Amino acid sequence: MNQPLSIAIVGATGSIGEALVGVLDERDFPVKELHLLASDESAGQSLSFRDRQVRVRSLEGFDFARVQLVFFAAGAEVTREHVALASAAGCSVIDLSAGLSLAQAPCVMPEDGQRVMATLKAPFVLSSPTPSAVALALVLQALRPLLLPRQVVVTAMLAVSALGRSGVQELARQTTELLNGRPLEPRALDRQIAFNVLAQVGAANAQGHAQLEERLVQELQMLGNDPQLKVAVTCAVVPVFFGDSLAVSLQADAPVDLAAVVRSLEQAQGIELAESGDYPTVVGDAVGQDSIHVGRLRCGISDPTQLNLWIASDNVRKGAALNAVQIAELLIKHYL
Amino acid sequence: MNQPLSIAIVGATGSIGEALVGVLDERDFPVKELHLLASDESAGQSLSFRDRQVRVRSLEGFDFARVQLVFFAAGAEVTREHVALASAAGCSVIDLSAGLSLAQAPCVMPEDGQRVMATLKAPFVLSSPTPSAVALALVLQALRPLLLPRQVVVTAMLAVSALGRSGVQELARQTTELLNGRPLEPRALDRQIAFNVLAQVGAANAQGHAQLEERLVQELQMLGNDPQLKVAVTCAVVPVFFGDSLAVSLQADAPVDLAAVVRSLEQAQGIELAESGDYPTVVGDAVGQDSIHVGRLRCGISDPTQLNLWIASDNVRKGAALNAVQIAELLIKHYL
Repeated sequence: MNQPLSIAIVGATGSIGEALVGVLDERDFPVKELHLLASDESAGQSLSFRDRQVRVRSLEGFDFARVQLVFFAAGAEVTREHVALASAAGCSVIDLSAGLSLAQAPCVMPEDGQRVMATLKAPFVLSSPTPSAVALALVLQALRPLLLPRQVVVTAMLAVSALGRSGVQELARQTTELLNGRPLEPRALDRQIAFNVLAQVGAANAQGHAQLEERLVQELQMLGNDPQLKVAVTCAVVPVFFGDSLAVSLQADAPVDLAAVVRSLEQAQGIELAESGDYPTVVGDAVGQDSIHVGRLRCGISDPTQLNLWIASDNVRKGAALNAVQIAELLIKHYL
Repeated sequence: MNQPLSIAIVGATGSIGEALVGVLDERDFPVKELHLLASDESAGQSLSFRDRQVRVRSLEGFDFARVQLVFFAAGAEVTREHVALASAAGCSVIDLSAGLSLAQAPCVMPEDGQRVMATLKAPFVLSSPTPSAVALALVLQALRPLLLPRQVVVTAMLAVSALGRSGVQELARQTTELLNGRPLEPRALDRQIAFNVLAQVGAANAQGHAQLEERLVQELQMLGNDPQLKVAVTCAVVPVFFGDSLAVSLQADAPVDLAAVVRSLEQAQGIELAESGDYPTVVGDAVGQDSIHVGRLRCGISDPTQLNLWIASDNVRKGAALNAVQIAELLIKHYL
């Protein structure tokens, strides 16, 4: 138990890949060998891990038999192309790219992971939920003893880092050009994101839902073990570099006991509740933090069965890298 | 009827005041004399109206008997201090500052204003609804023949211009300082708005609701003539200069006929529906436009009785100045 593992990170040079390396380092994860993999263009760079530089190598041709655990942190396509190789080599897989269906790779929160993992066997193929789902699921889990939501309505105001490093660069470039009075030519995005809000992430299906929105709903249903949970979600992109802001309305069956909700959230692991009268923001509170930050707790103005709240969370760290490493910690402790 | 009126604009040098002057000009409103009023500090400036420069004078000591109609477009406090003088002088008043209670000054949409005005008599004291309420009320009105919402959940992502000109200047200054790597010292706001989202506008009451949120709910109930309408609203501020983005979920009693909703919105005056597959943004579509822009029409993922949509609207123009001038047009046509 807790035998060191050899690990591969696919997409090591992306923001989530880099954060994974940092979190493995900080948490002293028992790593035997660390293999950093990326596309041919990014191969050759180095990342620092345990005071030495680890060279990033090309994913193509990598022999997955050299590792026991693979984090997929590149695009969904990359995961779909390479996961079979990893599994065939006997690796357990934690996917952060939403590249696999939840039937193929059930999503897991470390706080509740053993329930899911007990139904599976090694080698594991798991998904780390999308960042907004991680944040929401933590809050719903803390509230579960108090209220069973009949319905959840959430507006997720996502940072451009949800679109990867190119989203971050695009916001910086567009903002600079606009402030310098230069004409704007969107590149990584199809329109202006600087000083604007985009109502949709990616393309929508025939029903009007974006893939990310459908995924988020499925993940919340799976994580809450409640396939009937009604979730309305709008994922928008705001001109923010890092950190997701969620405005959430929960509909309960009975009047909400706000004082009990406060106590529950105060005691919950991984949640930081803003002081009464204050509210959290991504820049001021959440970014770089392991906890998600919750505030603006209030019942509906004319509806005591409604609970409204605000969540600010780091989409790269707790929302992705930390959550995936915490899943790996569960794996190594109980199953590998 | 349609006799030219002498008009005063209180708060003429603010963004809404300036927009009012522009809209009166563009729409050829029958103005006899135009009096531009502001605080002592702003007095002395000039604004262009009908190809001449009109000097802004001090509000203090202005003789309201010289005009028949007053627009209050400064702060709520300024309205509360001066409205009695205006009324005593026999002026009709249109308040854009939310400075008066809805009992004192019922809110009116031009699209439906005669119903309210028929119950009142001159001189009128009316409110122009807050910009987000204008946008939402237009959509709800267009949908009313099709669905009676049991509940509305809205996340309003407001531009900094909701905080007046100082909000606009603050976002520009903060953004520039951050991009130049200088330390940030928030001034007009109590924290960083550049590349951040603020979960709340102003202070919250003991129940956790901001004044603007309570007002918005009351206005929607009044405009919909439905005091029981349940509305959950979160007003947040995003790093956008102009234009409000609203993510809206409506809960109906029966499955929503999406095709009928599309037809209804396509035919509605003042609403521009995005083409299927596209979505509107404040910068790309709404700002500077008289119409509000609607998109992302979709039912709930697992709830056919839910209708979700997105609204992008110009908070200064249709949301405030145009709406107020349209109310004035009704007044002059039917009542003054």
